[in-house]
Amino acid sequence: MSVTAARGFRAAGVAAGLKARGGRDVALVVCDRPATAAAVLTSNRVQAAPVAVTRAAVADGCLRGVVVNSGGANACTGAAGLADAWEMAAVAAHEIGCAREDIAVASTGLIGVRLPLGLVRAGIREAAGRLATDGGRDAAMAIMTTDTVRKESTRAVLVDGATVTVGGMAKGAGMLAPALATMISVLTTDAEVSAEDLGVALRAAVSTTFDRVDSDGCTSTNDTVVLLASGCSGRRVRRGGAEWPVFTGALREVCADLAEQLVDDAEGATKRVAVRVTGAVDDTVALTAARAVARSALVKCAVHGEDPNWGRVLAAMGAATSRFDPDLVDVRFNRAPVCRGGVAAGDLTRARAALGGRQVEIGIDLHQGRGAATVLTTDLTASYVHENSAYSS
Amino acid sequence: MSVTAARGFRAAGVAAGLKARGGRDVALVVCDRPATAAAVLTSNRVQAAPVAVTRAAVADGCLRGVVVNSGGANACTGAAGLADAWEMAAVAAHEIGCAREDIAVASTGLIGVRLPLGLVRAGIREAAGRLATDGGRDAAMAIMTTDTVRKESTRAVLVDGATVTVGGMAKGAGMLAPALATMISVLTTDAEVSAEDLGVALRAAVSTTFDRVDSDGCTSTNDTVVLLASGCSGRRVRRGGAEWPVFTGALREVCADLAEQLVDDAEGATKRVAVRVTGAVDDTVALTAARAVARSALVKCAVHGEDPNWGRVLAAMGAATSRFDPDLVDVRFNRAPVCRGGVAAGDLTRARAALGGRQVEIGIDLHQGRGAATVLTTDLTASYVHENSAYSS
Repeated sequence: MSVTAARGFRAAGVAAGLKARGGRDVALVVCDRPATAAAVLTSNRVQAAPVAVTRAAVADGCLRGVVVNSGGANACTGAAGLADAWEMAAVAAHEIGCAREDIAVASTGLIGVRLPLGLVRAGIREAAGRLATDGGRDAAMAIMTTDTVRKESTRAVLVDGATVTVGGMAKGAGMLAPALATMISVLTTDAEVSAEDLGVALRAAVSTTFDRVDSDGCTSTNDTVVLLASGCSGRRVRRGGAEWPVFTGALREVCADLAEQLVDDAEGATKRVAVRVTGAVDDTVALTAARAVARSALVKCAVHGEDPNWGRVLAAMGAATSRFDPDLVDVRFNRAPVCRGGVAAGDLTRARAALGGRQVEIGIDLHQGRGAATVLTTDLTASYVHENSAYSS
Repeated sequence: MSVTAARGFRAAGVAAGLKARGGRDVALVVCDRPATAAAVLTSNRVQAAPVAVTRAAVADGCLRGVVVNSGGANACTGAAGLADAWEMAAVAAHEIGCAREDIAVASTGLIGVRLPLGLVRAGIREAAGRLATDGGRDAAMAIMTTDTVRKESTRAVLVDGATVTVGGMAKGAGMLAPALATMISVLTTDAEVSAEDLGVALRAAVSTTFDRVDSDGCTSTNDTVVLLASGCSGRRVRRGGAEWPVFTGALREVCADLAEQLVDDAEGATKRVAVRVTGAVDDTVALTAARAVARSALVKCAVHGEDPNWGRVLAAMGAATSRFDPDLVDVRFNRAPVCRGGVAAGDLTRARAALGGRQVEIGIDLHQGRGAATVLTTDLTASYVHENSAYSS
């Protein structure tokens, strides 16, 4: 259900022939009435054509739908690619009966290749004909690339005695890094929220969820998170109101759930790793240190080998920031101490055993203040190398 | 010969029992008379004990020798580790007959473990007894860790009709990143150079050679480059003099040669990759862009798979800097064009074939100015993952 869990939304996912391996590859999510909307888009200087279209479409805070394709990123395709992305919006708009500026567009797949627009057009038309209130599952499948499972999440909360729902779908797998992963997520809610408030809520939710995912340090050209609010629950939510924390809490939970699903299904990963830095002089230092550890190829290899090699953790932090004292640092792997005050501590056999499971927390206390941050990453595996050595050929 | 090619130097390398796999693991390089000296040390906030000793020893611009061990980094070992490093200097100084402040120390191996000082002491004494003018080869073998071959280089130039020699040895293999790799290099010359001029020459040489190597983005706690000048050639070299470019050219060539040897023997690598950015608005932007491409796990996997995936090159640059226009970028793999003006160009079959050899140049022209930079890296392979998943266990 996910993206169609909230009232007022229909969706579909169809096979248009874009993916070499077959399967659904065009998704359409539509709101039955004009929705307020917000988006968070990639910070990469190189931005795909659909990102430009979505930025323009969401500028007025209003959308009717989102069209997404897998099987091609439509990035680095020049003016022709931009026209293709607008054409996707126009075809969807024609089917739904709205302006093309009311449609957001997202694409994912190989960079640098034009989309087969004839196939895309036919796919969008077919999807429009299949829109259904239980179409969320098909849509979630259609946005997958190297994902092995679809990612969906839903939360329902009570606002003034009525149920308000937040739902969403996402795709990830590779090129996952801060300031958004190679990820596309479409989120919906039936709360009534102004576009301005929706933007505030979305940016806050993304900043501590999707933005804290880092599978391989590679920020995509196509990262897109779009949130639409139908208002169909009949319940208004506004900043400063009593219902605001309830709504934003549900939105954050959905984003956090989807972000964890992205990490769990990252290319080649066998472990989900949470790097948790506490005791930093401020949150910025904590985040810098956590990201450096999460991005270290050597730390990720050690975790893969279940090797409690805490020296690599300290080396990774020290290369990224000077705002900590190495002689104060404690490190734990899944709570098993391995380093205290910057030198070896604890029992390495116990620490090695603690790394045996699928979930690993690297806990780092800098003992210098109250700054804290967590970044999610994965282990680095031979499978990651295999998958990404053969991706486009 | 390498580190003993220049007149006035003797060296030795012995097996002290520090390496689990056996082999030479303690090296000693000694100048027959007080040498002027300079060093470039890791920029990591976490610095190993021997780095602190070397910094103190070289502060007065004078050294008599360098002692190096593999089989243990003596990093993150606290006050006890610092005392161990000073003890290494003291033992070597006692054998040679100088003050411990005249000995530089470098260590490489696992972080966080104390050195077995009894073995180290005995090794230094044995090495002192074996010092020889043809001991450079043994010394170069003793500093190897996961290196598969020893790295040596020598250049001889004429200064006022006399031969001046610059020689050196290095070790690398893993944790290779800008601001020095996990690398140790000892360089010697028989030119007579003031300590101040030696520092200027060394920093300049390192900045465009060792500092432009990036195998895995991981900067070590132990990076050390030391240069000693014996003056035994009888030829003085000074900044501003006619002989300065000759001497600094030879020094840079030795550093560049050793840096290339480090990349060629990097853990798991099957290809040497030169990322060459030209046409940037300035050299800093060129270097930022080149480093970002050299560090991209996805680019390195693509090179490994001989996949001309130029989209990953653009995405890596765009995530690192906004100071270029994606619509102006040209990309070539070993001169085969794959992207022109930000969109696909050339023949992918030809580009794929161009990636078939061991040496790959990724040429990127930003068409915005005269800034240029080159960074050396490797492909990312399953072997790298295997080697670094099992390193300390």
